[in-house]
Amino acid sequence: MATVKNRKRQSGAPLHLGEGANPSSEVVHFGDGAALPLDSGASLTPFSVAYRSYGTLNEDKSNVVLVCHALTGDQYAANKHPVTGKPGWWETMIGPGKPVDTGKYFVLCANVLGGCMGSTGPSSTNPETGKPYGLAFPVITIGDMVRAQMRLLDHLGIDDVFCVIGGSMGGMQVLEMAANHKERVFSAIPIACAARHSSQNIAFHEVGRQAVMADPEWRGGRYLDEKTSPSKGLSVARMAAHITYLSDEALHRKFGRNLQDRSALTYGFDADFQVESYLRHQGSTFVDRFDANAYLYLTRAMDYFDLAADHGGNLAAAFKGTNSRFCIVSFTSDWLFPTEENRAVVQALNAVAANVSFVEIETDGGHDSFLLNEPELFETITGFLSSAARRRGLRFAEAADAVF
Amino acid sequence: MATVKNRKRQSGAPLHLGEGANPSSEVVHFGDGAALPLDSGASLTPFSVAYRSYGTLNEDKSNVVLVCHALTGDQYAANKHPVTGKPGWWETMIGPGKPVDTGKYFVLCANVLGGCMGSTGPSSTNPETGKPYGLAFPVITIGDMVRAQMRLLDHLGIDDVFCVIGGSMGGMQVLEMAANHKERVFSAIPIACAARHSSQNIAFHEVGRQAVMADPEWRGGRYLDEKTSPSKGLSVARMAAHITYLSDEALHRKFGRNLQDRSALTYGFDADFQVESYLRHQGSTFVDRFDANAYLYLTRAMDYFDLAADHGGNLAAAFKGTNSRFCIVSFTSDWLFPTEENRAVVQALNAVAANVSFVEIETDGGHDSFLLNEPELFETITGFLSSAARRRGLRFAEAADAVF
Repeated sequence: MATVKNRKRQSGAPLHLGEGANPSSEVVHFGDGAALPLDSGASLTPFSVAYRSYGTLNEDKSNVVLVCHALTGDQYAANKHPVTGKPGWWETMIGPGKPVDTGKYFVLCANVLGGCMGSTGPSSTNPETGKPYGLAFPVITIGDMVRAQMRLLDHLGIDDVFCVIGGSMGGMQVLEMAANHKERVFSAIPIACAARHSSQNIAFHEVGRQAVMADPEWRGGRYLDEKTSPSKGLSVARMAAHITYLSDEALHRKFGRNLQDRSALTYGFDADFQVESYLRHQGSTFVDRFDANAYLYLTRAMDYFDLAADHGGNLAAAFKGTNSRFCIVSFTSDWLFPTEENRAVVQALNAVAANVSFVEIETDGGHDSFLLNEPELFETITGFLSSAARRRGLRFAEAADAVF
Repeated sequence: MATVKNRKRQSGAPLHLGEGANPSSEVVHFGDGAALPLDSGASLTPFSVAYRSYGTLNEDKSNVVLVCHALTGDQYAANKHPVTGKPGWWETMIGPGKPVDTGKYFVLCANVLGGCMGSTGPSSTNPETGKPYGLAFPVITIGDMVRAQMRLLDHLGIDDVFCVIGGSMGGMQVLEMAANHKERVFSAIPIACAARHSSQNIAFHEVGRQAVMADPEWRGGRYLDEKTSPSKGLSVARMAAHITYLSDEALHRKFGRNLQDRSALTYGFDADFQVESYLRHQGSTFVDRFDANAYLYLTRAMDYFDLAADHGGNLAAAFKGTNSRFCIVSFTSDWLFPTEENRAVVQALNAVAANVSFVEIETDGGHDSFLLNEPELFETITGFLSSAARRRGLRFAEAADAVF
């Protein structure tokens, strides 16, 4: 962490900016004539989609697993992160012999539209001004993110995916793709998500946005151009959000009221408690790898998500005609996307007689459980994918098949 | 509200400052020779306790109900607030014929030590410098707050209280008084609280403090002296906290995904959703009536609260020897101080064979239920107080006695 901070101070600019302009991953540029129509009515041109792949695409391109990342994730799902140097955010899930087995599947993960790791977002250059978009970037939706990913599939000549999988905002993309690009989805695994963002979740996001916008260094979104950094505001936003990703039980188990490197209360405002120190760390490291405006745009996209809205509030209608196989996963201690929200998706799918299985996993890990070492999650994904693979007639080399 | 805002702009200083220096309520000044010893080891001198009373003290001073306010409350429990012009924060509970019946009881409510409505706090003048204390104010505890209230009772010649009652941080004071000033408590009603602040609650408080401190106008706590105002940071802190006072269900019931004065999404960062508009209002009105440093100090006092800590972690030991009658109240949808936390107090009291009743009230109102129109809460308090009054041999005029 110290090294990271030093690097930031030396360069004078957040570390992720280099990645945003010139990602370590593959990137596809869609130029004029390939404008992306957006739900707002605007269209975006040019735009880029940065992505990473893992494993090998088979001959008939039938083994694609599209991984959709969450709010602050990116395309580096299963390899070292180019900014933080940490392992990929889903290395527990993706890799040789892992549930999403790169010995079997061709795994694709794209940075979302509106993000800051190489796909076009508010920190990208606005062709009309030659400066970073800032708030001139159009507000995007989960539908727009998925539309950009479909362009990536087109570019790679992939008609459909064997599976689309993701948690949280990633799960929203899974649901969006399954509902609005049905023919491209053989199977879908939305984890810890909802078909619409709740009032409480909108409220927490709004607090985060207000924290960013309250930072005078945000400068109405023009901080990149003005060479300032709303890192304090973004750090507060991350701290507030981070609490919602955990559970009361997990916080109690991990930290309780334990003191941080001291034997008694100091009667001051330093981080006396471990949980304070932990949160401050979460906030301060986040700002090195994430763009404040991207945080505004992506939280807004989640807030706007309401899959049933285009169907008169009837969620089942959104899935009518689906031939995809679904595996819905929720976690008992997830209070951000509680089981009821996930169950509402199951009920909608049942109402259109879709092929759906539903697993609620008992854990105290909270919303972030989909990123943690949760054996029941791994077993669930492994089993579902194996079954779906048999159904699709996928054939794998023997060694890979025997891993689980 | 508009008037309030105009007044603030005209004066150039937060409205509460006048109240802090010269409260509309009674105020007792404790001068040299009456220094208040604090849990930190420091002592405070001089100090003031501002309070309001309602009803009439009987001849033997046996009908005192001490009301302890919550984090952002004050002494104006049952009369118009001098800054906001709104009704007192507990007018549902306190008044003629109400559960805490001012026709029967002499109700006392003091602004807590560390507050900003007339009792000594960080916005008070530091006698050593002639300037506002700011961060030179000593960190105080719930124990210190109660100690200041005991001085007020001494000053008024009140040996003991018929009842001490309060919710949230007020409930913590109730527990503190019942544990550490046992002989002064005939009965106690701690509502929606806990004998120690949880890791999650410390975490939320830390976010709020960081939001305040991240505001460059906070100026290391010297904003009053430097004539700035960390209102943006304090507003964000209030917004985050406010979400925790409600429940997911209540937010869904009140706001859902309803839009604010518009028929469609605007694809921007204005408050599209009612819940956003509501939260922004909560944040912006709060800063007119509350001092940012007081917010830091009072949240810190709550974080430090751990009644069992002085008894080797044995909560029952804190109550050993109590002769008080207890009524513990929790709310099903309160996720900040969930029923289990309240039940832990009940169990500790049972372990020392205390006289305790416990009511968990079914409501979707969340933590703030103690401030809302909750008939079961009113019935509970009325019944408990009537029973306790009979036990104490209190006699009331017939009319008042017949109200319930």
